[in-house]
Amino acid sequence: MKEATKVSVPVIKRLPRYHRYLHQLMQEGLVRISSKELSARMGLTASQIRQDLNCFGGFGQQGYGYNIAQLYTEIGNILGLNHTKKAILIGAGNLGRAIATHTRFHDQGFDLIGVFDSSDSVVGSVIAGQTVRNSSTLERFCRDNEPVIAILCVPGDAAPELVTTLISCEIKGFWNFTHYDILHDHPDVSVENVHLSDSLMTLRYQVKKYENEEDPS
Amino acid sequence: MKEATKVSVPVIKRLPRYHRYLHQLMQEGLVRISSKELSARMGLTASQIRQDLNCFGGFGQQGYGYNIAQLYTEIGNILGLNHTKKAILIGAGNLGRAIATHTRFHDQGFDLIGVFDSSDSVVGSVIAGQTVRNSSTLERFCRDNEPVIAILCVPGDAAPELVTTLISCEIKGFWNFTHYDILHDHPDVSVENVHLSDSLMTLRYQVKKYENEEDPS
Repeated sequence: MKEATKVSVPVIKRLPRYHRYLHQLMQEGLVRISSKELSARMGLTASQIRQDLNCFGGFGQQGYGYNIAQLYTEIGNILGLNHTKKAILIGAGNLGRAIATHTRFHDQGFDLIGVFDSSDSVVGSVIAGQTVRNSSTLERFCRDNEPVIAILCVPGDAAPELVTTLISCEIKGFWNFTHYDILHDHPDVSVENVHLSDSLMTLRYQVKKYENEEDPS
Repeated sequence: MKEATKVSVPVIKRLPRYHRYLHQLMQEGLVRISSKELSARMGLTASQIRQDLNCFGGFGQQGYGYNIAQLYTEIGNILGLNHTKKAILIGAGNLGRAIATHTRFHDQGFDLIGVFDSSDSVVGSVIAGQTVRNSSTLERFCRDNEPVIAILCVPGDAAPELVTTLISCEIKGFWNFTHYDILHDHPDVSVENVHLSDSLMTLRYQVKKYENEEDPS
């Protein structure tokens, strides 16, 4: 399979979604699907789907549609899911514990190899099969184990110094649950931000429209 | 303050981010900021910022910049944060517990008034000040208390039936942590999806580029 050298960010952002829908189709026992049927499921146009998948050399056969299992595997390969990378998680509070426990790291191309916290009350406890390590051992651990990404679940004010340390330890990517704007200070690393509060505030705005129905004042 | 009747979705999506940055500036003790300084902080152009804020009638004074506290409050009002709406959370597993505990609902325009789960092992325990209720009491609770949004932290296969029930109970918005595509089946409700696995897979793709540096094969 040919992989185009430059794929646009919006296409990349849609690939996990294709992957998710295709997984669901396999679970339903389907074998092939046309771009038209897939588009109806996903709320995209059929031509958008054909265009997206063509970016990677095209998988469909005219008139036959896509082989679901094959497309699923190939999109997984494009994303890199067939080859896991080492991940560490820092901050084993409520959110960190949930992320460590809830995430199917292996399905998403990662192995969680270490969990760190600076609080004595948490260090030594076991989360997602990992004994929580003291953050003071972080640099040594990174030198010895060479993780590639760090998952940041620490309070925002702890993030800037921590990120500088992690980058000096060769961390290349961040799954960032803090509000610290990593790319502003470190434009060369890879970052995926999860701003839960932004999402909830956007929903708050969306439900404003129902206020007028209830309360015309 | 005039609020434009139609504000585009991308502008709305940026408002929580403005809100977040302005909060930080207040914490740093700043009083006024120019669109140029704000743009340098946020990685947007100054003209983009002026354009965004003009959608709501404009807050800046030529040559004086923006009053930070005032802009913060007004953006909060536009989002609806000054008037809380009732929220319930369904699914008190690891993720649901973390979301209930970690989220500052009041700061984001909501009150969490109920937490539900169908598992006897969780019902009756206390999370974020809420005693977890049995999901069998959900409809009755909604009739009596009229929550406006539901936070879905249930397994994906439980989501379709649950959403139908919740919509019949007058729930208008969903903060959706499941993979169920609510808008596909119910296009008239408000939905904010948090697809954590999509985000992590996107990061997996991003860190692929470092593989070639390490391993030229």
